[in-house]
Amino acid sequence: MVKLTDVAKKAGCSVTTVSRVINNYGYLSEATKNKVHKAMAELNYQPNSVARSLQGKKTQLVGVIFPSITNPFFGELVEKIENELFKEGYKTILCNAANDKEKERTYLQMLMANQVDGIIAGAHNLGIDEYKKTGLPIVSFDRKLSDNIPIVSSDNFAGGSLATETLYKNGARHIYFIGNPVLDGHPTQKRLQGYQQKIQELGLTPHVHPTKFGESLELKEMAIKELLQFHHVDGIVASDDLTALTVWQVANQLNIKLPQDLKIIGFDGSQYIQNYAPFLSTIVQPTSAISELLVKLLQERIAHPNDKLKQITYQLPIKLLNRKSCQ
Amino acid sequence: MVKLTDVAKKAGCSVTTVSRVINNYGYLSEATKNKVHKAMAELNYQPNSVARSLQGKKTQLVGVIFPSITNPFFGELVEKIENELFKEGYKTILCNAANDKEKERTYLQMLMANQVDGIIAGAHNLGIDEYKKTGLPIVSFDRKLSDNIPIVSSDNFAGGSLATETLYKNGARHIYFIGNPVLDGHPTQKRLQGYQQKIQELGLTPHVHPTKFGESLELKEMAIKELLQFHHVDGIVASDDLTALTVWQVANQLNIKLPQDLKIIGFDGSQYIQNYAPFLSTIVQPTSAISELLVKLLQERIAHPNDKLKQITYQLPIKLLNRKSCQ
Repeated sequence: MVKLTDVAKKAGCSVTTVSRVINNYGYLSEATKNKVHKAMAELNYQPNSVARSLQGKKTQLVGVIFPSITNPFFGELVEKIENELFKEGYKTILCNAANDKEKERTYLQMLMANQVDGIIAGAHNLGIDEYKKTGLPIVSFDRKLSDNIPIVSSDNFAGGSLATETLYKNGARHIYFIGNPVLDGHPTQKRLQGYQQKIQELGLTPHVHPTKFGESLELKEMAIKELLQFHHVDGIVASDDLTALTVWQVANQLNIKLPQDLKIIGFDGSQYIQNYAPFLSTIVQPTSAISELLVKLLQERIAHPNDKLKQITYQLPIKLLNRKSCQ
Repeated sequence: MVKLTDVAKKAGCSVTTVSRVINNYGYLSEATKNKVHKAMAELNYQPNSVARSLQGKKTQLVGVIFPSITNPFFGELVEKIENELFKEGYKTILCNAANDKEKERTYLQMLMANQVDGIIAGAHNLGIDEYKKTGLPIVSFDRKLSDNIPIVSSDNFAGGSLATETLYKNGARHIYFIGNPVLDGHPTQKRLQGYQQKIQELGLTPHVHPTKFGESLELKEMAIKELLQFHHVDGIVASDDLTALTVWQVANQLNIKLPQDLKIIGFDGSQYIQNYAPFLSTIVQPTSAISELLVKLLQERIAHPNDKLKQITYQLPIKLLNRKSCQ
């Protein structure tokens, strides 16, 4: 690692002068500035941001905590968040929290110890208290953490409703919802509420077939097989695209005629699913807008950590991608 | 943020005593140690690692630079690397370098400024010099950077050979390779070499249909359409699973009978492809072993940055996942 003394030696001046140039402090001639900048460039010297952070400046590090980037939706979201943060001069510390409470807790402690400037949280394991304890600026995706943490999400209610309506318009009358059946106040649960309200409006009977986020694929397949074999179902609203793909696969194994006898719609609509599962209808979340807003709100919290929030909940519009699986 | 003075106040002792407990320095009674630890726990105080890093200790940060985590293979690999680093007490700074040279260069500068302890590099944009300049411990995935940087990769040659043999055994005789046609000394290019040697052994004619990594999906589809419409082809070795999925989709659009008239095999075999593209045959890279080895080698470089390398190239075994697309 190149040191301040190396720059000073190369530039033919004192360490104090180099330090003054870097911190733009005190009188310096243009010639001196040029000499020092030239030496810094030649040696590829980077002012030490660790040292700067001790002088009360920011570390320009942001912790990004999400369940798993191997889910294509979270992968896309984290990539876009990382890009947005990069544009604003921040680096991303990635934490895949999976379903591991202990890992998420340890990460929060590590992030505090490393003095990140803030956290973008999209994981599902911990409650309000652990995040509050950090004393750091936080914004949340799709998850209610506390009254003083802004939440960004898609309009999940409209999505659940639109998915249900799409199946109905294409002829389905026995429409099931597959996903987490618990209504615990988090934004994603509004997909189920949107389904329920639309089903009621249409005069149909609601059916919720529970599966758990993070459950093994084998268990999910078993539950879906049971549903397709022993229930009268001709339409499925899946809580996410991976569940929808699993329904599609199980239905194929059971030789159910798709989409004639069973119509399926997913949720999330990542670019990956748009490109590589070209048959699947889905509700598309606006990942670019979500990422931009999360980073914008975090920057506001970093700049004014003690301001009272003007708005806590932000909902971004979804759209329908209607393809073969619904027709 | 809780300060040392808060801990001292809570514990009823001086700041110096608290500092001694944290740094385990000088004589301290058990009673004093207990008081301070209790106060730290109650206030959730974290010793400031930024301050510690200035005392010449490590930051426990590692930069991880890969093309894009929205590719399921890289997503899985980065997630596993993050997990391995976490187990060893490191945090991951994520950089999606995409095909953006300028971004990768800026990241390297930022990583130096932030004094990461090392870098795991899997991106494809920059040459040796930029990485050398950092003066940091580096290990590389699938990419030759310099004689002093260890490279971990799968046995790409065996993979290319096995893929070709698998198509042949299942009856294909006009076997094309789709991927990057340039042989530039990087490990991934050995897939093509493995294909070429096996084709020669089998007494067949080699055909390489060039596509570029990072090319838009539309261009790739157009190139594949041209291949399938105007060439006599009954088997395809794709350089990666996403290209294989695109071949599958284009063949479907052209009403080619799969797999009777066209057999396809991919490369990478991420868990995602195993689960959600259940028809696709592929060569599986051992992502867990790759991640473990990358982190292990990086730790060795961090501990002994100036040691001469005993070994530069590490190759891990691949395996065949043979499914519907080859039968």
